[in-house]
Amino acid sequence: MFKQISSPQNKEIKWLLQLQDKSRNRRKENAFVVEGKREVNLAIKGGYQPLDLYFVPELIEFQEVVEMAKAKTDSPAEITEISKEVYDKIAYRGSTEGLLAVFRSLEHQLNDLEFKTASPLILVAEAPEKPGNIGAILRTADAAAVDAVIIANPKTDLYNPNIIRSSVGCIFTNQIATGSTEDIIAFLIEKNINIYAAALQASIPYHTIDYKVGSAIVMGTEATGLSDEWLENSTQNIIIPMHGEIDSMNVSVAAGILIFEAKRQRSIQPE
Amino acid sequence: MFKQISSPQNKEIKWLLQLQDKSRNRRKENAFVVEGKREVNLAIKGGYQPLDLYFVPELIEFQEVVEMAKAKTDSPAEITEISKEVYDKIAYRGSTEGLLAVFRSLEHQLNDLEFKTASPLILVAEAPEKPGNIGAILRTADAAAVDAVIIANPKTDLYNPNIIRSSVGCIFTNQIATGSTEDIIAFLIEKNINIYAAALQASIPYHTIDYKVGSAIVMGTEATGLSDEWLENSTQNIIIPMHGEIDSMNVSVAAGILIFEAKRQRSIQPE
Repeated sequence: MFKQISSPQNKEIKWLLQLQDKSRNRRKENAFVVEGKREVNLAIKGGYQPLDLYFVPELIEFQEVVEMAKAKTDSPAEITEISKEVYDKIAYRGSTEGLLAVFRSLEHQLNDLEFKTASPLILVAEAPEKPGNIGAILRTADAAAVDAVIIANPKTDLYNPNIIRSSVGCIFTNQIATGSTEDIIAFLIEKNINIYAAALQASIPYHTIDYKVGSAIVMGTEATGLSDEWLENSTQNIIIPMHGEIDSMNVSVAAGILIFEAKRQRSIQPE
Repeated sequence: MFKQISSPQNKEIKWLLQLQDKSRNRRKENAFVVEGKREVNLAIKGGYQPLDLYFVPELIEFQEVVEMAKAKTDSPAEITEISKEVYDKIAYRGSTEGLLAVFRSLEHQLNDLEFKTASPLILVAEAPEKPGNIGAILRTADAAAVDAVIIANPKTDLYNPNIIRSSVGCIFTNQIATGSTEDIIAFLIEKNINIYAAALQASIPYHTIDYKVGSAIVMGTEATGLSDEWLENSTQNIIIPMHGEIDSMNVSVAAGILIFEAKRQRSIQPE
């Protein structure tokens, strides 16, 4: 009924490893690898199409895998049984769950973003580098239920396994787009969304801004900040006032402070 | 005039490596290793006593090292010249700066904390595990100029090289104490400082609290939250309202949101 692979030297397993390890392969194949039951279910719920499911029969019920494979009734995923040895070679998190999946990548185009409100709250990160920071930002964006996360001039592809993992699946629960800084600025202006660029230059304290209108909060990198295009095209540059000796903040922490100030003004109501 | 060590097999170099790598050795020796000019200067400025300075003559001016060694005039640090090969064996960050130092550890006792204000703002983290999160929390605490950071039931020693590194030196700019949860609760109650425990149970939204009085914001771990002692002894349990699908937040991001809400209410004034 389904394929079985027991050797880690199998060609398909090598293909899977390359897909997991190399951004280039993910782009070429237009596909990526997800590990673990919870994450696979979140990806399916997030509208991703599973292409292949690999399971270890000792670790996961076959029936569960069949349900996942049928998620998209028009084109069910192919199921392959793998040995624990094969699984251990690919999986990052030890062998507790026994499930790997290959999903079709999404396009993440700006014009595919759908806003349920006339005044969306958007988080933009320009050229973020560390997968751990991107994951933390996606977790905050999920918790704040922002309307979209937009990655400008991405340095890594979204489906880097370290991003998937450190986002604890929030990569699949957020509406995400990517694009060039230029295109994103044009998109935000066209949609009449205010641009608040986190910056040191000519900035006013972040908490004096009214975020109840459509707002994009834009974060640069810790090393170099935002590009001039953002600073020149922002509605207002904003700053988190700091009073320490070093005054450096992790970019995902700074993003959290800004997003939750907007939330405080918007949907969080004093009880 | 000073010792020279050119072999990575030298006994003192092995001792230094052990001091850097092993918490047990740091505790036994009551000392720890710091790498890089900026960090060494921050430690000296933070009141730490340098015991030994190791420098690579091709990479750093001898005169600079002498100045550092004299930081505490009553007991100058011993200076040792090391080869680039030795430096590369110990240093984490490549060989750009050519400076390592051994410092005497501080005690970090609760009763040594000094508050310049009658209503201090304190960040407490119970049993934090990941050095990267501890470093990010210390950066936020520096930027917010909180009056103290207190680590309850520490899992790792503060002088873990990954904590020093990820704090970008903020380990030396914050006033830090460690202690048992029981002792810290008694200390805060005695000092008349309100305890706001971040928790899911019986909690009210964090932004409805008045943090202008003496306040300790207390964070647990992502995995298990705070221990019952905190929840039972808090002035009020607080929660960051979340509206996403996964609703999980990085602990250093959550700490940043809470601390900067307190700051917004206190010292940050609208301009």
